[in-house]
Amino acid sequence: MQIATIFTTANTALSQQLAAAVNNKTKPPGSLGMLESIARQIGLIQQTTRPAIHAPAILVFAADHGIVAENISAYPQSVTWQMVENFLAQGAAINVFARQAQCALHIVDAGVNHDFGPRDGLIDRKIAAGTRNFAVEPAMSNDECARAMAHGAELIATLDGNVVGFGEMGIGNTTAAAAIMHKITGIPVARCVGAGTGLSTQGILQKQSVIERAIAHHASISAPLDILANFGGFEIAMIAGAMLAAAERRMVLLIDGFIVTSALLVAARLQPALLDYCIFSHCSNEHGHQQMLEHLAAHPLLQLDLRLGEGTGCALALPLLQASVNFLCEMATFESAQVSDKSDD
Amino acid sequence: MQIATIFTTANTALSQQLAAAVNNKTKPPGSLGMLESIARQIGLIQQTTRPAIHAPAILVFAADHGIVAENISAYPQSVTWQMVENFLAQGAAINVFARQAQCALHIVDAGVNHDFGPRDGLIDRKIAAGTRNFAVEPAMSNDECARAMAHGAELIATLDGNVVGFGEMGIGNTTAAAAIMHKITGIPVARCVGAGTGLSTQGILQKQSVIERAIAHHASISAPLDILANFGGFEIAMIAGAMLAAAERRMVLLIDGFIVTSALLVAARLQPALLDYCIFSHCSNEHGHQQMLEHLAAHPLLQLDLRLGEGTGCALALPLLQASVNFLCEMATFESAQVSDKSDD
Repeated sequence: MQIATIFTTANTALSQQLAAAVNNKTKPPGSLGMLESIARQIGLIQQTTRPAIHAPAILVFAADHGIVAENISAYPQSVTWQMVENFLAQGAAINVFARQAQCALHIVDAGVNHDFGPRDGLIDRKIAAGTRNFAVEPAMSNDECARAMAHGAELIATLDGNVVGFGEMGIGNTTAAAAIMHKITGIPVARCVGAGTGLSTQGILQKQSVIERAIAHHASISAPLDILANFGGFEIAMIAGAMLAAAERRMVLLIDGFIVTSALLVAARLQPALLDYCIFSHCSNEHGHQQMLEHLAAHPLLQLDLRLGEGTGCALALPLLQASVNFLCEMATFESAQVSDKSDD
Repeated sequence: MQIATIFTTANTALSQQLAAAVNNKTKPPGSLGMLESIARQIGLIQQTTRPAIHAPAILVFAADHGIVAENISAYPQSVTWQMVENFLAQGAAINVFARQAQCALHIVDAGVNHDFGPRDGLIDRKIAAGTRNFAVEPAMSNDECARAMAHGAELIATLDGNVVGFGEMGIGNTTAAAAIMHKITGIPVARCVGAGTGLSTQGILQKQSVIERAIAHHASISAPLDILANFGGFEIAMIAGAMLAAAERRMVLLIDGFIVTSALLVAARLQPALLDYCIFSHCSNEHGHQQMLEHLAAHPLLQLDLRLGEGTGCALALPLLQASVNFLCEMATFESAQVSDKSDD
């Protein structure tokens, strides 16, 4: 597939205008902390000093993973399709949080090992009934990977809004994400693996050993798209493709946890300016996510020890994005409110 | 005044029911992190496994401080009344954030050095036109302090809802709060003082020196209410009284930053079970707040480097409280959604 070219949002004149607008508000300079940097970032993305959030949406991509044959998850593979059913029935955490945040929610079958048939509310982009077991062979072909990325990009084109969050569901996908993290960042596998949905210490060691064997097996792989195809999942590839397309449209990208950030590691390696468009919703409790964020020099909004995925961090962070643009657009200035500015001493 | 007796929310049977309800939801155990502990806490406060948030309100108390004569603030005292006007005109950060969170906002003149006259939207509970300068004499009399606390308690009785957040405005009040912090916790003054609205390093040292002299001047003071009267502000005393009354009514108390937490230090010394009712909205960037929170063994929801006060942290954290009760009340269980629970390995 053709990879979109992403342009940086850097703009010195607009940056100065945004900083002045933030500092003229009736508050001590800097006193709104991270909300001030988010307001400036969204202003740069939207190329305005009066940014707005319009029709935010979260896309949740679900897929299965052949690597589950290696016994690396605390839950059986059937939980992937069962949770998709739960999404469709409005019963999962992401349904509750997206509803509260008045955020549209789109559920995508990227490659679940289950025949859902045609279903209201389920977007069918199934590449296959799960990836292959990357401990023994590439998870997907380069063609499958490219098709998944293209589907992700096409879904972005269907959105009306200017903010998109990414979520995922896929038993086994922390194993895929940890392998990608290791290959992209060079951080040792032991520091990339975690408990996922709830492995024991023994289970985590088993997962590490599976990944280390797989990495050795595909030792020559180094290009980002080859890493994605060999170790990734259909949901991860679709998210990577969607991210690039969303940034090309100058949307705000809301990044969730460990899996979604693994997709970003690949996509940002392809187009580094992608990071200008990303707001990191939270730091997950999944071991490895914090180091992913440090690798990206990212400052997450929330630190709630979440480790659920589904895009839950995005939905929970959305009110903070709204607050950032609201203070910039709605607060009085020192001049308009006739409030004295800082004294000289 | 009569100090209310606050009873602990501890309830072993209900705690177990709440833990079971949280763990039966379709998510790995613990995967919603702090939202799970907040859901359990609100359940205990409301004595139910199906807690709800009803008609949340934020009370913002404004007052002036005689200690400004010692040149301890980056802004002139007139900013207190000017910011009250800004609140009434809907132009301040707390107006924007409370509106976004659909949270009622009540502005209270606890003792501002300005004659507002009768004004729509301003609750007049003025004790005096500011406290006296505690560097040379007690900030208020014990009677003034008791009246302020009683006013705070009475205002709680006018609320319909079950969640109340506390905010404040008062040039000079970080100096009062730092003195209270030192006297209640024993933490050295140098670690209690910070930049407030934006002091220079030189200004912070001046503030520290003023507080150390005042502490020496009132060296015999040790009872919590005497500390509050000698070093406090009318807004701080009113907040302390309101907190005790709100907990007596089994409301959820949403705690803001450095000033509000200084009121809590006094109130919780009087009635330690008060802490069962408190949710800490954020860790402020004001030097000293983090140590206040550690002293209280508190885990704040947000860490956004805010240092504005006004109750802004409360308004920004409110959606996370709502998310906590929503997941508990609205998510499907493993059984209801027919999702497989954790496998045995």
